[in-house]
Amino acid sequence: LKNEKINEFRHTFLDLHPSDQLDIFISLNQDARAKVYSYLSPEEFANVFSGLDIREQKLYFLELAEEYSSTMFNYMFTDNVVTFLAEINTERADAILANMDKDKARHVKRLLSYAEETAGSIMTKELIRISSTEKVSNVLERLREEAPTAEIIYYLYVTNVNQELVGVVSLRDLIVASPEETIENIMSKKVISVEEDLDQEDVGHTIKKYDFLAVPVVSKENHLLGIITVDDIMDILEEEATEDFEELSATKGSTDIDLSGYETAKMRGPWIIALMFLGMLTAGVIGYFEETLEAVVLLSVFIPLIMDSAGNVGTQSLTVAVRGLALGNIKQGGFWRMIKRELTAGFLLGLVCMVSITVLISVIYGNWILAVIVGVSLLCTLTVSTVVGFIVPLIINKLKFDPAIASGPFITTVNDILGLVIYFSIATALMHLL
Amino acid sequence: LKNEKINEFRHTFLDLHPSDQLDIFISLNQDARAKVYSYLSPEEFANVFSGLDIREQKLYFLELAEEYSSTMFNYMFTDNVVTFLAEINTERADAILANMDKDKARHVKRLLSYAEETAGSIMTKELIRISSTEKVSNVLERLREEAPTAEIIYYLYVTNVNQELVGVVSLRDLIVASPEETIENIMSKKVISVEEDLDQEDVGHTIKKYDFLAVPVVSKENHLLGIITVDDIMDILEEEATEDFEELSATKGSTDIDLSGYETAKMRGPWIIALMFLGMLTAGVIGYFEETLEAVVLLSVFIPLIMDSAGNVGTQSLTVAVRGLALGNIKQGGFWRMIKRELTAGFLLGLVCMVSITVLISVIYGNWILAVIVGVSLLCTLTVSTVVGFIVPLIINKLKFDPAIASGPFITTVNDILGLVIYFSIATALMHLL
Repeated sequence: LKNEKINEFRHTFLDLHPSDQLDIFISLNQDARAKVYSYLSPEEFANVFSGLDIREQKLYFLELAEEYSSTMFNYMFTDNVVTFLAEINTERADAILANMDKDKARHVKRLLSYAEETAGSIMTKELIRISSTEKVSNVLERLREEAPTAEIIYYLYVTNVNQELVGVVSLRDLIVASPEETIENIMSKKVISVEEDLDQEDVGHTIKKYDFLAVPVVSKENHLLGIITVDDIMDILEEEATEDFEELSATKGSTDIDLSGYETAKMRGPWIIALMFLGMLTAGVIGYFEETLEAVVLLSVFIPLIMDSAGNVGTQSLTVAVRGLALGNIKQGGFWRMIKRELTAGFLLGLVCMVSITVLISVIYGNWILAVIVGVSLLCTLTVSTVVGFIVPLIINKLKFDPAIASGPFITTVNDILGLVIYFSIATALMHLL
Repeated sequence: LKNEKINEFRHTFLDLHPSDQLDIFISLNQDARAKVYSYLSPEEFANVFSGLDIREQKLYFLELAEEYSSTMFNYMFTDNVVTFLAEINTERADAILANMDKDKARHVKRLLSYAEETAGSIMTKELIRISSTEKVSNVLERLREEAPTAEIIYYLYVTNVNQELVGVVSLRDLIVASPEETIENIMSKKVISVEEDLDQEDVGHTIKKYDFLAVPVVSKENHLLGIITVDDIMDILEEEATEDFEELSATKGSTDIDLSGYETAKMRGPWIIALMFLGMLTAGVIGYFEETLEAVVLLSVFIPLIMDSAGNVGTQSLTVAVRGLALGNIKQGGFWRMIKRELTAGFLLGLVCMVSITVLISVIYGNWILAVIVGVSLLCTLTVSTVVGFIVPLIINKLKFDPAIASGPFITTVNDILGLVIYFSIATALMHLL
């Protein structure tokens, strides 16, 4: 780039894997980027632009001439164009669409109308359709022409005259088959597809379950609309996992490692402050039992023990629930069985903790009534907390609310309050024995 | 199955997608399974067996006749055979290997010798090698024969006479190319490969970064050894994510939804009990400051607030660290920058919390000195806890210990102790003012 050797740069750069092209492009300064735009055709740069994440796309888009960018959009896969346009002002998006190739613009508009995170909104239109009456040799011939424009050519979807999806042929089958065979005889008729409004996470489960490289998207009438490829699904599964992590720790959006200290504080802050105010409630609980506490100050020594234990079992159950929901393991009907399981687990854990802590406190503090109070409190708290940690995310999920409300710290605080109420109630009841 | 109509069953069953075959097979009882074994050839059943998870494989393996199972292993991909044999007694594994096809057994033995979770241990040997001097038409011809035995045929790896990996051709390139072209002219020489001892998680990052369907595995001398396909990588990335979830919540192994209440209690129990004993330390901290507490019982009211806040910011930082490590975002050199970032974030959060809690407590409890004690404690605790939550998993990772030690509840307990020490130290120092 420094020596202005256009041809040499083009040759070296275009020979790289797209992902490495990206790494280089991102490391450039504005002047160097301007050179890249002039050295590469819009078609060539379309590849680089598609690979950028949305934040970078927005930054660099404004450096592109209007004509250059509209040509570039024509060469991008529809799903990538959609991702970009969905994030900018509608008027601006319309202006861009108006400059684009008409057919492409129509496809993009259709995809833009899907609700976020559905199969329709992440599918791409660049796929290869074949007819069941074609011959293998014929299809291979067509593939030669169409391959460069399709996102994936390893599955060929077979449609009938009504554009209904009736079968699928893998490129492997096609290669192995005799050239004179008709598609109908080698296609698999049991083609697995997803409907356009299916949640993207469920699309991910389908692709994972069947070890597919791509899955076709169909309308309610079984019309073939587009495909979703495994590489997009991997990104989506990663995003969903990140969301679950954020849910478990109330860090919404702040797991991005590039944020500054101030930015991350701003993102985590609302949670911490909200939880702190909730913590005032916990303070209120203790305040309510102040008389009990004043009579037996020693009781306060075990506040952390009760709280931590309640929080820990709650977090465990929460994780099992969140992970189960993400992997699609929690099925209809299994709900009550699992509540029972958590209840059993919580009770058993409580029993073991009760016995050991009662012995321990009797020995260390020489006060067996205090030991029994703490022990019984632990038994009750652990049983309740386990169920709460498990059931709250499931209920929130069933009610279709944003599950981020059931974040780990929130459930921990709820369990703390429950634990302390149980502890002080038992202590107050048995205080006259102390 | 009930009507003993062999042909009908074979036809319907074998026409299904392997994943649906699995679902059916798992739902059968022992008698029905025995029929499946007799209706299907070992070659056909190999597919079903490969799809089972390891626990089910162990259960059903014993229902198979010895000869049937050795034939079956010959028809499975090496990576699947390895996964099974790695989990059973070495002597038994050797006996099975002795009955297998010699070539296959040799491959399997080689793979078994790799350390767990490395690229070598998860790769498969069934790939298509071509030479750079071959013609396109020639390769397509060979593909017709070899396609059924290869795990993936969409990338063809090019080796020279020394078996060194020198290029890659996608089936797409091959289809588009003229039949008379030689491979050398259409192959990409910049082939991205992974070394045999690379960690499987890093293999996953490579495949994800480049949107590959498979990646070749090479030895230190660049000899082509095998390939790893995207479907195996998806399973591995899911496993690794599950491990991280377990780490965050101390639920090692118990996120499996099929466990009974007793089993899950047994798995989660050790953590809960260990943490409870650690909680006795927290009790000790409060016990140490009992005099202070007896003088001002009101101090105990804010114990939960301090603990929860410390735990919450710690969990947030821990999540950022764990997720950053998993996604490979935390790079060399960025370490100190990120510590600084967490320190800044913790301090800012602490500042906001200090101001709001000081006002709140002054108003509610009408005691501004108490308010200042709690506020300043929060500032110190939040700053320290943020850094602790972030730094501990990174240090453990650097020391190559099992990061599960840095589980969320453990860090929460550590932060609780730090928080309480800070709180009571400040309170004791300023007590004479109260």
